[in-house]
Amino acid sequence: MYIRDIIMTKRFGKTLSAEQIRHFIEGYSAGDIPDYQAAALVMAIAIHGMTPEELSVWTDSMLHSGSVLDLSSIPGTKVDKHSTGGVGDKISICLAPMVAACGVPVPMISGRGLGHTGGTLDKLEAIPGFNVRLSTEKFIRLVGSIGLCLIGQTKDLAPADKKLYSLRDVTGTVESIPLIASSIMSKKLAEGIDGLVLDVKVGRGAFMKTEKEARKLAETLIEIGVRAQKKVSAFITNMDEVLGNEVGNALETKEALDVLHGKGPKDVTELTLKLGAEMLILGGKADGEEAARKILEKAIESGSAIEKMRTLIDAQGGDSSVIDQPDLLPQASHKISILSPESGTIHSVDPLKIAHAAMMVGAGRERSEDSIDPAVGITIIKKRMDKVTKDEELAILHHNGGSSVEKAKETVKAAYTISDDSPERCPLIIDIIKGD
Amino acid sequence: MYIRDIIMTKRFGKTLSAEQIRHFIEGYSAGDIPDYQAAALVMAIAIHGMTPEELSVWTDSMLHSGSVLDLSSIPGTKVDKHSTGGVGDKISICLAPMVAACGVPVPMISGRGLGHTGGTLDKLEAIPGFNVRLSTEKFIRLVGSIGLCLIGQTKDLAPADKKLYSLRDVTGTVESIPLIASSIMSKKLAEGIDGLVLDVKVGRGAFMKTEKEARKLAETLIEIGVRAQKKVSAFITNMDEVLGNEVGNALETKEALDVLHGKGPKDVTELTLKLGAEMLILGGKADGEEAARKILEKAIESGSAIEKMRTLIDAQGGDSSVIDQPDLLPQASHKISILSPESGTIHSVDPLKIAHAAMMVGAGRERSEDSIDPAVGITIIKKRMDKVTKDEELAILHHNGGSSVEKAKETVKAAYTISDDSPERCPLIIDIIKGD
Repeated sequence: MYIRDIIMTKRFGKTLSAEQIRHFIEGYSAGDIPDYQAAALVMAIAIHGMTPEELSVWTDSMLHSGSVLDLSSIPGTKVDKHSTGGVGDKISICLAPMVAACGVPVPMISGRGLGHTGGTLDKLEAIPGFNVRLSTEKFIRLVGSIGLCLIGQTKDLAPADKKLYSLRDVTGTVESIPLIASSIMSKKLAEGIDGLVLDVKVGRGAFMKTEKEARKLAETLIEIGVRAQKKVSAFITNMDEVLGNEVGNALETKEALDVLHGKGPKDVTELTLKLGAEMLILGGKADGEEAARKILEKAIESGSAIEKMRTLIDAQGGDSSVIDQPDLLPQASHKISILSPESGTIHSVDPLKIAHAAMMVGAGRERSEDSIDPAVGITIIKKRMDKVTKDEELAILHHNGGSSVEKAKETVKAAYTISDDSPERCPLIIDIIKGD
Repeated sequence: MYIRDIIMTKRFGKTLSAEQIRHFIEGYSAGDIPDYQAAALVMAIAIHGMTPEELSVWTDSMLHSGSVLDLSSIPGTKVDKHSTGGVGDKISICLAPMVAACGVPVPMISGRGLGHTGGTLDKLEAIPGFNVRLSTEKFIRLVGSIGLCLIGQTKDLAPADKKLYSLRDVTGTVESIPLIASSIMSKKLAEGIDGLVLDVKVGRGAFMKTEKEARKLAETLIEIGVRAQKKVSAFITNMDEVLGNEVGNALETKEALDVLHGKGPKDVTELTLKLGAEMLILGGKADGEEAARKILEKAIESGSAIEKMRTLIDAQGGDSSVIDQPDLLPQASHKISILSPESGTIHSVDPLKIAHAAMMVGAGRERSEDSIDPAVGITIIKKRMDKVTKDEELAILHHNGGSSVEKAKETVKAAYTISDDSPERCPLIIDIIKGD
């Protein structure tokens, strides 16, 4: 089998055979196929796409480029959640313990944030001592014993994806639905899960800018999951606005704890309950959304959800006293109020501008080797639909100094659009697509 | 300017700016842009194509990646010919001296053959002592003093093309009309020519398999040439049959000498006269084909054409006694007659099979570092439209032994299709496209 023939097959828009795909992924992982040939093939795929059959084999080959976790010794249906990422998305941190508290084991392997604010791992690391670098053995042990564990990507999980992603990053082929979908699913399937709930975000603050694209990605993710015989559902959710009120690592962790305490913001709580309900349904703990939601609400009311969080923090080496004393989370030395320049109604708060402002004060990283400041970020006081009067507080910038503070402040201000009339209401959850 | 943005522009089928193209070609030539990024861009170009404006800048950048010859000190309009290559194509060897004998300077820089039989350089090297590795200074001097010179590609002529071609060869992007056209034209324009006649071959024995493709390539080549303010014409000629009767380096050189002596095969002579007439017209030596043809025929009859060949061979260090004694050209130790298995009319002689058979006995090279045997090849006795009786001689295989002789013999036999009825006549010259 010649790699040149494989490249030319896709170049002319034809379908790759399973043998061709496996030959490429194995050869590229092993270093037998050079980057320039991989780049040519990946560009042809980015332009011509892949059929569901090709994509299924492509993902399966990537998944088998490393080790695949075996969670079969753990009783129950193991269900994870994955979000395509948005500004203020701290859902995993409250969702995982809530679902685990209801008896569905949650094995969650997350990524770090790049570009915007931090990822789930960065937010968890805002908890003093919390260790996300556990071995896969310990990961499996904790999922078995306490019902959940949250760690970072390990080297031996879908290494082909890591190599391919680095190549895509420098060859203009990141934006490709089949390549994005196979990248996500190869890592998730390598966790050894039985079910997966996907949160595909759409809007200004998301990777997918249009509902059409988001829907296509959701359908592609489900198609791959179903072909791999997993239970998969996908939510399409709005990311035109910041999720919740906090942006920044410790601030977001605190907000997630609020949800577990039953006093979180409405949007974060609602989305956590919706996603959690679907996880309970896939996990066989409820027949429908209403029943599932009752179980989850009970977990909050009874305190079992927040207690599961305490168990998790203790098990992963963190200081669980942050649960009762959230002030123990890192706090910025300075807080600046951003005041409204006029009276009116907030029409929109641009989530990308908020994310950029957060990054300017150190909440995110531009390159993977950059370090982040867990304490800094932005608290959004006034959100879309809110009335505001001149000089009323719109937001708070939490910072520890630095040359970009003034620019960050201006950027937060610029994120706000204020007008006389009222904006239309738009739903947080746009659609739910089920894999069967 | 970011290379990733350049790649993504073409990935999404948009038009590259002149700055983007120059940035890429310069950066890639200098080694600042890695192969994998070049491979991604080239694949996107192979799929989406280039506009005439893009192609013009692309070619110009490649041409200026090395030195551009300055022939302005030589009086007259300098005209070259380029063929896209076919089986038995020895036209350059008789055409160049014939045109030079008529007063049009011919600066010809040729390539070596790869895949099929040898290229023009290999055929010339069949003449004992003939040196195709002259310096560009000597090349310019000879074009000035004797009116022509035939040498090989030098390192400093369009080096970007050489680098890019190697990459295309391993990334499935050789077959791309804009990339083929810019590769040809960047090298030809670097010769410092004023005019160019192109022979775009189409058919089983050519790179372009359909007339539509050939026409597109011809138009693209002309477009580039005209934008570079050169006089350009393109012939589209048939390559469904071997050109002439000889395939193999010394055999073809001998046949080219026959043309100059006025006793060449009808098809080779006719194509040489047609292409030569166009070169005289572009060179300002005749107003129309009829007048030009008369000048060329007179050059053959008067012996000035063959005497120009003698001067060329002497000037490039070859043994010009081959002109009067062609038996001094290398000859194979064995000649095998291939006999007709039946009586009938020759419907076709597959040029690719003939080329493969010639390669089996050593007339071509598979890799650029392979050496070739100048003496071996195939003489086609019976061609398309010829009547043949059982056991009559179809062809002669010239070989010097080796393990593939039997297979070569079978391949020559398999190239023949013999039938009871008569095939349709098809023209050698399909069309002529002029650049103005």
